[in-house]
Amino acid sequence: MEIREEIGSAYLQVKTKRPLIHHITNYVTVNDCANVVLSIGASPVMADESSEVEEMVSLASALVLNIGTCNSRTIESMILAGKAANKKNIPILLDPVGIGATKFRYESILKLLKEVKMSVIRGNMSEIKLLAGLQTKSCGVDSLDEDADGPKIAHNLAKSLNSVVAITGKTDFISNGTDTYSLNNGHINLTQVTGTGCMTSSLIGSFLGACDNILAASIAGISTMSIAGEKATKRMNSLDGIGSFKVYLIDEINKMTAETFTKEGKIEYVNIK
Amino acid sequence: MEIREEIGSAYLQVKTKRPLIHHITNYVTVNDCANVVLSIGASPVMADESSEVEEMVSLASALVLNIGTCNSRTIESMILAGKAANKKNIPILLDPVGIGATKFRYESILKLLKEVKMSVIRGNMSEIKLLAGLQTKSCGVDSLDEDADGPKIAHNLAKSLNSVVAITGKTDFISNGTDTYSLNNGHINLTQVTGTGCMTSSLIGSFLGACDNILAASIAGISTMSIAGEKATKRMNSLDGIGSFKVYLIDEINKMTAETFTKEGKIEYVNIK
Amino acid sequence: MEIREEIGSAYLQVKTKRPLIHHITNYVTVNDCANVVLSIGASPVMADESSEVEEMVSLASALVLNIGTCNSRTIESMILAGKAANKKNIPILLDPVGIGATKFRYESILKLLKEVKMSVIRGNMSEIKLLAGLQTKSCGVDSLDEDADGPKIAHNLAKSLNSVVAITGKTDFISNGTDTYSLNNGHINLTQVTGTGCMTSSLIGSFLGACDNILAASIAGISTMSIAGEKATKRMNSLDGIGSFKVYLIDEINKMTAETFTKEGKIEYVNIK
Repeated sequence: MEIREEIGSAYLQVKTKRPLIHHITNYVTVNDCANVVLSIGASPVMADESSEVEEMVSLASALVLNIGTCNSRTIESMILAGKAANKKNIPILLDPVGIGATKFRYESILKLLKEVKMSVIRGNMSEIKLLAGLQTKSCGVDSLDEDADGPKIAHNLAKSLNSVVAITGKTDFISNGTDTYSLNNGHINLTQVTGTGCMTSSLIGSFLGACDNILAASIAGISTMSIAGEKATKRMNSLDGIGSFKVYLIDEINKMTAETFTKEGKIEYVNIK
Repeated sequence: MEIREEIGSAYLQVKTKRPLIHHITNYVTVNDCANVVLSIGASPVMADESSEVEEMVSLASALVLNIGTCNSRTIESMILAGKAANKKNIPILLDPVGIGATKFRYESILKLLKEVKMSVIRGNMSEIKLLAGLQTKSCGVDSLDEDADGPKIAHNLAKSLNSVVAITGKTDFISNGTDTYSLNNGHINLTQVTGTGCMTSSLIGSFLGACDNILAASIAGISTMSIAGEKATKRMNSLDGIGSFKVYLIDEINKMTAETFTKEGKIEYVNIK
Repeated sequence: MEIREEIGSAYLQVKTKRPLIHHITNYVTVNDCANVVLSIGASPVMADESSEVEEMVSLASALVLNIGTCNSRTIESMILAGKAANKKNIPILLDPVGIGATKFRYESILKLLKEVKMSVIRGNMSEIKLLAGLQTKSCGVDSLDEDADGPKIAHNLAKSLNSVVAITGKTDFISNGTDTYSLNNGHINLTQVTGTGCMTSSLIGSFLGACDNILAASIAGISTMSIAGEKATKRMNSLDGIGSFKVYLIDEINKMTAETFTKEGKIEYVNIK
């Protein structure tokens, strides 16, 4: 099956199965994450108390771990939930928000990666380069780095971690260590709304919960956000700013169909030498 | 007074008294809860630090306890606030979010019910059936159960807990153990936005803070959300999805009048045999 | 330079420098705070884990401390971040949300003021009067006090704390202890959306991060919110309520230009006798 068709098929599986997606995530963008999960047709649940996360994740079809406003308590819960998910083969997405900003975040991510096997790691260019041990530049939780070597960086890290690695930015690079794709949908407006990265992670989580092809699920999640960003921008009139854009963005995710991906997806296979 | 008129009167009391509604609630939907409380004309305050909740609740006209993202610290605060509210006869609404999902939630709710007298318990069908000791099916925090016996379940649990019990869903069932009503407003779109259950609880809390008739306050809170959901849906055009729906929903709560309830409320008395 | 021109210039500096604004803030309005910071052209980061806040704030150009849903853990983090900011001359805004509601809040603010030097303190009339040791009336986190002596209260507290003090309300009063201004933009709708006070604080923080004139930065932040509130109201049609208003509000902040302040700003110098 061609990748765009696999994504369309993944989308239909989300609609059919309505997978439960357990999140341990930040309090800044959590409401938007829950709403995009609902918009695409999955079901969100958020729970971070250490004494319940193992039980909660065992009910879920995928787990999303996002360290946006993590603390020592929630990192502990992430490890417990992650280990429980691993035992039951429940796929996990890790979003290493601002890993370069503080030692606490960096070490928390290393600990998580040591204790838990991730299906997908999604970050911006600096977050992923840092994970790959490369030099980079960031500002808080935002990347100040664009790197033409993106496909190779994703490919190599995917190989070494045995996970799908997704670098999102102007162009997105996704690799499972064997196959690598670049995605060219999206719009600059997506950088003007807080949490579009987190929402993308939650969308990937939604696809992971319904479809076995991890690479296709990752591309589907990212494409959903990027294509919706393009469509939301087209709806804007001269009075609208990013307030309206954000409303349209949720609308457009909600109005997605399987055909949207085949028609609009700018997805290219990248040969890694 | 006919029930629709009592609700209309409750609504006017909210507008006049502008009651302060103290919430200890989850971080997923808290912003929307605060905004619906403001939309209906009450005043929200959120505080969960154990050393301040007793003082905070004593300033309030009602307390809303919602365990959506509870942890051991916030459950402790809920008990402290609940006991303080009981001492001052401040009405309390309990929203047992996802009580069936984990042992921690189940035991926390039992503890809360043991230590604190609730005025209203609002949940979906599975949450309430679980509380009533009946078998049910849920998925995370969502109910997978519809039960034609709803009126009786609400009635019996209300009687045994000496609280108003509200089961919300396609049809809502509300009982104080003596009188039982079924409500038939609402729209499927309300299930596509996160937190409409939580928001309904906050609306009930707003009415509880202004009106002594607990049953009428509960029906008023639920009807507000359901009727607003119908009106918001009517405003949607072909470009709109649940992003726009959510904006319209807050608008419609804000535009409510006392007449809305008498004109639009589909409220029926149910005879329990 | 005339004050309106200084504000216009401050605005252009935000756009040029895109300062990183570290927040330790409440979970009720945090998403809106992040979005207004992005809307005005700055970059938000939220982090409250005690072991990382010193490092995080050292990357930032300003720090916003907001006690809306503070607890003993986050107050500790605020002190650590505040002290680190002081060492590096990073300006700090303090928002003493609901300081009059509980002893815990009052004592936390006193502790913060004792340990940390604030550049700006922004609150409503009751919060500021309480800080100034004056009698006042509040309801939860809202002020029930309007005081014609506002300019003098701001002036005196600014002098005694050696900070800029901003009282926001129908008319806003801002003073650095030498120069005092009253601002007359705004609209009652701003009181109907939760967090417009918090968002104003985050806007002031955004200006503080880009511009050395603390008084001008404070006026700029408040004027941004007030003028956007006026413009958002003008866009409302008969179907719109505060849901739509909030969307327009973010839009209008996003569409601000330097000229908006010179054309629309109702800013007056107040002579304090």
